[in-house]
Amino acid sequence: MGPFDKKEECGLFAVFGRPDAAQLTYQGLYALQHRGQESAGIATSDGEVIRTHVGMGLVGEVFGEQELARLTGHMAIGHVRYSTTGSSDIRNAQPLTVEYSRGPVSVAHNGNLINARLLRDEYEAYGHIFQTSSDTEIIVALLAKPSHVAKPDPLGHVLGHLQGAFCLLFLFPDRIEAARDPFGIRPLVIGRTGDGTWCVASETCALDLIDAEYIRQVEPGEIVTLDRRGMTSRFFCPPHIVTPAKCVFEHVYFADPSSTVFDENVHQVRKRLGMRLAEEAPADADIVVAIPDSGRSAAMGYSFRSGIPLERGFVRNHYVGRTFIKPSAQDRTSAVKMKLTVIRQSVDGRRLVVVDDSIVRGTTTKGKIQALRRAGAREVHMRVSCPPIRHPCFYGVDFPTQEELIAHNRSVEDICKFLDVDSLAYISLEGMLSCVNDAAEHHCTACWSGRYPIPTDFTVSKFSLERNQLQMF
Amino acid sequence: MGPFDKKEECGLFAVFGRPDAAQLTYQGLYALQHRGQESAGIATSDGEVIRTHVGMGLVGEVFGEQELARLTGHMAIGHVRYSTTGSSDIRNAQPLTVEYSRGPVSVAHNGNLINARLLRDEYEAYGHIFQTSSDTEIIVALLAKPSHVAKPDPLGHVLGHLQGAFCLLFLFPDRIEAARDPFGIRPLVIGRTGDGTWCVASETCALDLIDAEYIRQVEPGEIVTLDRRGMTSRFFCPPHIVTPAKCVFEHVYFADPSSTVFDENVHQVRKRLGMRLAEEAPADADIVVAIPDSGRSAAMGYSFRSGIPLERGFVRNHYVGRTFIKPSAQDRTSAVKMKLTVIRQSVDGRRLVVVDDSIVRGTTTKGKIQALRRAGAREVHMRVSCPPIRHPCFYGVDFPTQEELIAHNRSVEDICKFLDVDSLAYISLEGMLSCVNDAAEHHCTACWSGRYPIPTDFTVSKFSLERNQLQMF
Amino acid sequence: MGPFDKKEECGLFAVFGRPDAAQLTYQGLYALQHRGQESAGIATSDGEVIRTHVGMGLVGEVFGEQELARLTGHMAIGHVRYSTTGSSDIRNAQPLTVEYSRGPVSVAHNGNLINARLLRDEYEAYGHIFQTSSDTEIIVALLAKPSHVAKPDPLGHVLGHLQGAFCLLFLFPDRIEAARDPFGIRPLVIGRTGDGTWCVASETCALDLIDAEYIRQVEPGEIVTLDRRGMTSRFFCPPHIVTPAKCVFEHVYFADPSSTVFDENVHQVRKRLGMRLAEEAPADADIVVAIPDSGRSAAMGYSFRSGIPLERGFVRNHYVGRTFIKPSAQDRTSAVKMKLTVIRQSVDGRRLVVVDDSIVRGTTTKGKIQALRRAGAREVHMRVSCPPIRHPCFYGVDFPTQEELIAHNRSVEDICKFLDVDSLAYISLEGMLSCVNDAAEHHCTACWSGRYPIPTDFTVSKFSLERNQLQMF
Amino acid sequence: MGPFDKKEECGLFAVFGRPDAAQLTYQGLYALQHRGQESAGIATSDGEVIRTHVGMGLVGEVFGEQELARLTGHMAIGHVRYSTTGSSDIRNAQPLTVEYSRGPVSVAHNGNLINARLLRDEYEAYGHIFQTSSDTEIIVALLAKPSHVAKPDPLGHVLGHLQGAFCLLFLFPDRIEAARDPFGIRPLVIGRTGDGTWCVASETCALDLIDAEYIRQVEPGEIVTLDRRGMTSRFFCPPHIVTPAKCVFEHVYFADPSSTVFDENVHQVRKRLGMRLAEEAPADADIVVAIPDSGRSAAMGYSFRSGIPLERGFVRNHYVGRTFIKPSAQDRTSAVKMKLTVIRQSVDGRRLVVVDDSIVRGTTTKGKIQALRRAGAREVHMRVSCPPIRHPCFYGVDFPTQEELIAHNRSVEDICKFLDVDSLAYISLEGMLSCVNDAAEHHCTACWSGRYPIPTDFTVSKFSLERNQLQMF
Repeated sequence: MGPFDKKEECGLFAVFGRPDAAQLTYQGLYALQHRGQESAGIATSDGEVIRTHVGMGLVGEVFGEQELARLTGHMAIGHVRYSTTGSSDIRNAQPLTVEYSRGPVSVAHNGNLINARLLRDEYEAYGHIFQTSSDTEIIVALLAKPSHVAKPDPLGHVLGHLQGAFCLLFLFPDRIEAARDPFGIRPLVIGRTGDGTWCVASETCALDLIDAEYIRQVEPGEIVTLDRRGMTSRFFCPPHIVTPAKCVFEHVYFADPSSTVFDENVHQVRKRLGMRLAEEAPADADIVVAIPDSGRSAAMGYSFRSGIPLERGFVRNHYVGRTFIKPSAQDRTSAVKMKLTVIRQSVDGRRLVVVDDSIVRGTTTKGKIQALRRAGAREVHMRVSCPPIRHPCFYGVDFPTQEELIAHNRSVEDICKFLDVDSLAYISLEGMLSCVNDAAEHHCTACWSGRYPIPTDFTVSKFSLERNQLQMF
Repeated sequence: MGPFDKKEECGLFAVFGRPDAAQLTYQGLYALQHRGQESAGIATSDGEVIRTHVGMGLVGEVFGEQELARLTGHMAIGHVRYSTTGSSDIRNAQPLTVEYSRGPVSVAHNGNLINARLLRDEYEAYGHIFQTSSDTEIIVALLAKPSHVAKPDPLGHVLGHLQGAFCLLFLFPDRIEAARDPFGIRPLVIGRTGDGTWCVASETCALDLIDAEYIRQVEPGEIVTLDRRGMTSRFFCPPHIVTPAKCVFEHVYFADPSSTVFDENVHQVRKRLGMRLAEEAPADADIVVAIPDSGRSAAMGYSFRSGIPLERGFVRNHYVGRTFIKPSAQDRTSAVKMKLTVIRQSVDGRRLVVVDDSIVRGTTTKGKIQALRRAGAREVHMRVSCPPIRHPCFYGVDFPTQEELIAHNRSVEDICKFLDVDSLAYISLEGMLSCVNDAAEHHCTACWSGRYPIPTDFTVSKFSLERNQLQMF
Repeated sequence: MGPFDKKEECGLFAVFGRPDAAQLTYQGLYALQHRGQESAGIATSDGEVIRTHVGMGLVGEVFGEQELARLTGHMAIGHVRYSTTGSSDIRNAQPLTVEYSRGPVSVAHNGNLINARLLRDEYEAYGHIFQTSSDTEIIVALLAKPSHVAKPDPLGHVLGHLQGAFCLLFLFPDRIEAARDPFGIRPLVIGRTGDGTWCVASETCALDLIDAEYIRQVEPGEIVTLDRRGMTSRFFCPPHIVTPAKCVFEHVYFADPSSTVFDENVHQVRKRLGMRLAEEAPADADIVVAIPDSGRSAAMGYSFRSGIPLERGFVRNHYVGRTFIKPSAQDRTSAVKMKLTVIRQSVDGRRLVVVDDSIVRGTTTKGKIQALRRAGAREVHMRVSCPPIRHPCFYGVDFPTQEELIAHNRSVEDICKFLDVDSLAYISLEGMLSCVNDAAEHHCTACWSGRYPIPTDFTVSKFSLERNQLQMF
Repeated sequence: MGPFDKKEECGLFAVFGRPDAAQLTYQGLYALQHRGQESAGIATSDGEVIRTHVGMGLVGEVFGEQELARLTGHMAIGHVRYSTTGSSDIRNAQPLTVEYSRGPVSVAHNGNLINARLLRDEYEAYGHIFQTSSDTEIIVALLAKPSHVAKPDPLGHVLGHLQGAFCLLFLFPDRIEAARDPFGIRPLVIGRTGDGTWCVASETCALDLIDAEYIRQVEPGEIVTLDRRGMTSRFFCPPHIVTPAKCVFEHVYFADPSSTVFDENVHQVRKRLGMRLAEEAPADADIVVAIPDSGRSAAMGYSFRSGIPLERGFVRNHYVGRTFIKPSAQDRTSAVKMKLTVIRQSVDGRRLVVVDDSIVRGTTTKGKIQALRRAGAREVHMRVSCPPIRHPCFYGVDFPTQEELIAHNRSVEDICKFLDVDSLAYISLEGMLSCVNDAAEHHCTACWSGRYPIPTDFTVSKFSLERNQLQMF
């Protein structure tokens, strides 16, 4: 699976108690850049004033020394947002900073609310105006509601209204609050640097970059507060009354291989997926070849278990930027070629096991297979380290529409023909779940199984939010 | 007075019923660029969807062919915003497009509300969130209020709540509504092109550029609707129950000399101001010299009435851009020198009458006087075509703080000494008012006289809005 | 005449003996920006190393603080180059810095060599390669020629080979040399600041900006050396053996009104041209209107002599940038409209004398006349403060091709009809020459009279250089 | 070895006989981007006019659709240039297009001339001027020399004067000529597309991208001509009279793993280097870890031969751009951390064999080792797939100065201590040479052995060229 196939998620980072809070957040976002390349933003507080800078593009493009210098304050939250094709609206960039009756607040969000449309309609009926098409604006509207403001724990109260997947960072003038939905769908971790500074991040790779120690996950239903007293915790949803529904796709594709997600290292999980795949779907082949970079860990596992030597079949072009001119409209596979070059001598005349983490639309996978064929591959046995993706995600993964999913209404045999491979096998759902430590039923497998852990009214899906009549660019 | 001295206002343009509505609006804003250089924006509607593009900078920088091509629709509103030094927040750029219970709406505003802070506090207490520090967001919040939505004429009802100076454009999916405050403080005019297309603009110079005929002003308290039925009108405030308070400063400085403002040509008014000034404050001098460009029309009038020949004393550098590096911090007058060069042969050994439209801080005026002295001017008699500015404006002119006004707590003699001129005279308030056609009492003269036409609670001035705790950049 | 009509010349600036030499040169070029907007460049020397930075665009765009900081050294030369439509080749930007047998040298040039093609062919035959299409590269090739290097005064020897118009600045590691052609076609002046620093500039307006005193012109045929000994002089062509041929067009259009050119103030000369024009071609009219900005001084003179009041007919839009989108292809006059707005009340129902400095193609003039007509002008009497331009310039003015000149093969009556004016009159050649102090025969009038002061082989005109087969962009 | 350690070479591409020649060259350069990221350029010819566009930055940044559209013509040559830290002079960008007595010519060069300074001094003595500090300008000066022009084969004659490493592309209006030095130091290959179009490239990966078949190498001393007759060949230096001296470093580090260089696949050679390294320097360890990306192929070979499992120790951040802000000055290792994240779970508590292709300065290698140690690596056994680099390269590899080479005047034991590894071993020179097919004596091993294949006068090294007194930026 490649970056053309699907949109990616968001990344969060927060730190409290350092004069260089913005600088640390910049580094943290840098390490989380794989979770979103559309926009980046940082908000800081010095105890009174909240300062925000957001922009379209990569972290290194949005922030220069000047911008960081102006983001004064000893606490900061940051956000990177997934890339989309059509929209580039700066107003949707996060953190979203607003003023309400209690003063300013800034919010950053990773996930997707399934009751967003309902809440929005309700608030519009109450007279609210909305300037963006993001869920996040609804969350701060909830927070500003007078009856919520009056509660003993307004934030905890508000979080109880949200349905769906969410990891949230709130920057108030005097503190940071970090929350994770009761199902624990998306990851969120707590770290501490050598000097005792607390931070929160989507993945541990951000902690590693700033030399912070990984302490533990934010628990499902938990609110963690970072303020001058240090780190404190409370639950807006009592633990263990909801069965966790951790997104397996974080392990399969999203997260950085170096990260610890749901208390397991991603690369090790992927290697196990490859090993299990080798057991479930052996192949009579000369070499194992990975689709870079997403299939590399699983391919290593497949090779290890099968005994078939791992070989480099592709070289990735590290200079493919966003300004690239496509060779021509009709030549659909060329974009693949610009990113990956086949090592002819590795594959010519050989029987290959080609391992990737997933197949979404199938078109880029097909392009890569064709490139291997042209280079002389004698047989191609495709092995995929997750089951066929057949259902939409309502919890934050931006798959294409169901109709565009290659596995939607298609058998594995049909896909095999479409890809023109000699054999095709996916890991089984049980096999995949056996590769993660926690119990199978503690995971969300909706995109594969169609079993949605949160009761969803499909008539008000997230897509309806995009039907609004604002277009800003 | 020069561009360094004070912030400028905003400019508005709207057109209904042309497939090239965005293109016409682009041209209209171009002609209004002198009213604001910080940001520019256009919103269009095709009857259903509202599309918006805003950006920091000049009209020609914000919009390229690509942006205009995406702004499809047969109606459009546009806005240019005044320049500020510290802030460059894209979120404050207009038109502001939001979604509320009745669908999308886009708003553009020229002026200043004096009850903005009160309204905002009230709405925050009701649970509203605010993302900008602009008055405009409050106006759309008022529009979205359920009890307002239920009124027979929600817009007319809402406009009744606003206190202060406002010209407003509202783009609904199916129509444009243009409104002017009951005091008629800021100008707003109606035009029609040869093919019958209706448009609205801050000044007639925008009509000239697109070859539209000037029809009439939008009246104080009037709402003008442009839709498929053509142009219709209603009043949210009955005409003639409020005494008009037209801003004389529009004639003195703001408006384009070619424009018809308050039904009088600006250049002709300025010439009359110069003539009156010559009568009130004659000088024994060899030549009359204008401070470019703001003093040119008045200087022409002064010369005409006094018989003293008009001479060019300065040449303006047309290539001073915003990226200019100031020569050095200590050399404060250099910025003046980069913009204006003295024609030594015009002034050397001569006694000059130097005419400008106004003096705000006095520092740039002083720099220009010094340049004339260095070039050999024997005597300098400064004549100013408006009275001393001594009071803040709460209706949309962004003067510096009262303490920074050179005439605040200073006599004309003191200013004369500060500027180091041989004589200094301002036109009298009566003299100034005698140069415009309408009755003296139909104008706002607050910045000169301290008499504010709208009862103002000074403890909740517009400045308090800037005390909020959001800083976005 | 407006900026659309013809290309403009180049501007030169040099200063020796100040640690902030690059900064002073930046300011000097700023004041000379009207002489060229295509590219800008500065070269500095610290006594050993020559550092150069050039770029496309305005001085303020090419140079930031960083670029200036890197241009260390106590001497500097700078250049601004005229704007062209088709080409934007950075390789033609100046100063041109090269290394030859005697070390590095940097050269900046204003003018045009008429024997460039001949010299170039000759040098190519000797084995030289050329990387640009500019004359300047030929000049340094001449300087590098071994037989020239061996001369007692190589530079003086080389300058003797050049035919045409040239003002040249040479930056050697230890000194600056400034030279002017024996005919003195283009201006070049010497200045000195209060602390004794010597500088050289195309026009005195650059001296004014840096508070330098105007000392004198560089004489025709003179080489002025700025080095640690101060300013010294020698002649490569003995004075007075060549009859001067000063370009009158510098006074008519090119130079800044504030400048002293050929020892006369430009604005005063233009005023005299206007007065003479009033004598030669009176008109029965109500007001005199200038075409901004080039016609303003002459219009003032015309009004003064004729007694017809001067009135503002146009307002210039100061925000027309280079990124402007033209309204549409068919609407040819719109570009004029975007730059100039007519003050309807000034011209409506009136009989106008419209004064401009010159008419080149005639198309933009026609657009302006049409705008006045549409605004209600009853009669338009066009008066031009130079004679009809009918011949090409081989000395540095980039007129369009002869066929594109409106006055080429057309009588004044024909032009009058083309412009659709009620009357049209040009100043006479004798009249024009009577307005400058020096003898008529000491000027070049080739573009009007066809009498070329330097014998020119027309088969090898400057245009042939552009026939080469390199296109860089 | 990483991108911080040393400058990289240049890449060449040429194609004849296609209307989309510029587009194909764009793609070819794209595939060669790893050979140079400082500047990119393309020159085309339509049979008469040569058009050139060059710019600083990546291919995708320098060329947009507009630039490609203007590069009309059925033949093209292209160039990417290595990145440097200090200089960013557009004048050094290639292809270099000049005009000489025979018309225009454009040249692109990969390599380094060792007699450049001598030739340049000689030509300066003859009166030549030089505008760049590149060897390439000297080559075209040679071509323009009248006595050379008169030869039956001027190009062949000129190439005989050049000493050093060079692959050269010449674009004449009617043809392309491609040449390789008699020692064959740098690679250059010939390809042909399915429709019979000939092309030339530095590496075969560029042929793969445009679906061209690899035909053969350009032979040492050969000139290949692409024109309307197809591809023809001649030798300017008879084959086999010079012993080849192919640069082994192309295989070790430079070339793309997918390329066929000197008729061997780079990845396969690197794998053999890793296998040989495992034989020469076994280690008692748990896993083999590669330094990404340069050490990956060798690590695979080491693992294969040693039987120690290959494991991913690092994840590379693909979003590290050039605008990255370094965390702080003192934290020297942070740049490494921003690019590579350690997978803690892979290395914690384990004994590692760490494989890289080479060590230049040693500082970035040390940073990576430290990162592994911090992640818990129990033992680190460093293995390097080329011998210690101790001598400068005069043939095109931009190593740092000899003093900066970690292996200069240091024993392997000293380096082992510096890196703080448990053991350190380099492959032997004989071992390395045994991994390439051709005879050992047919290779250049100067940077390791100090044995230079071309007699070099070290007093006139390439570095002296940089001592010139021009600095352009």
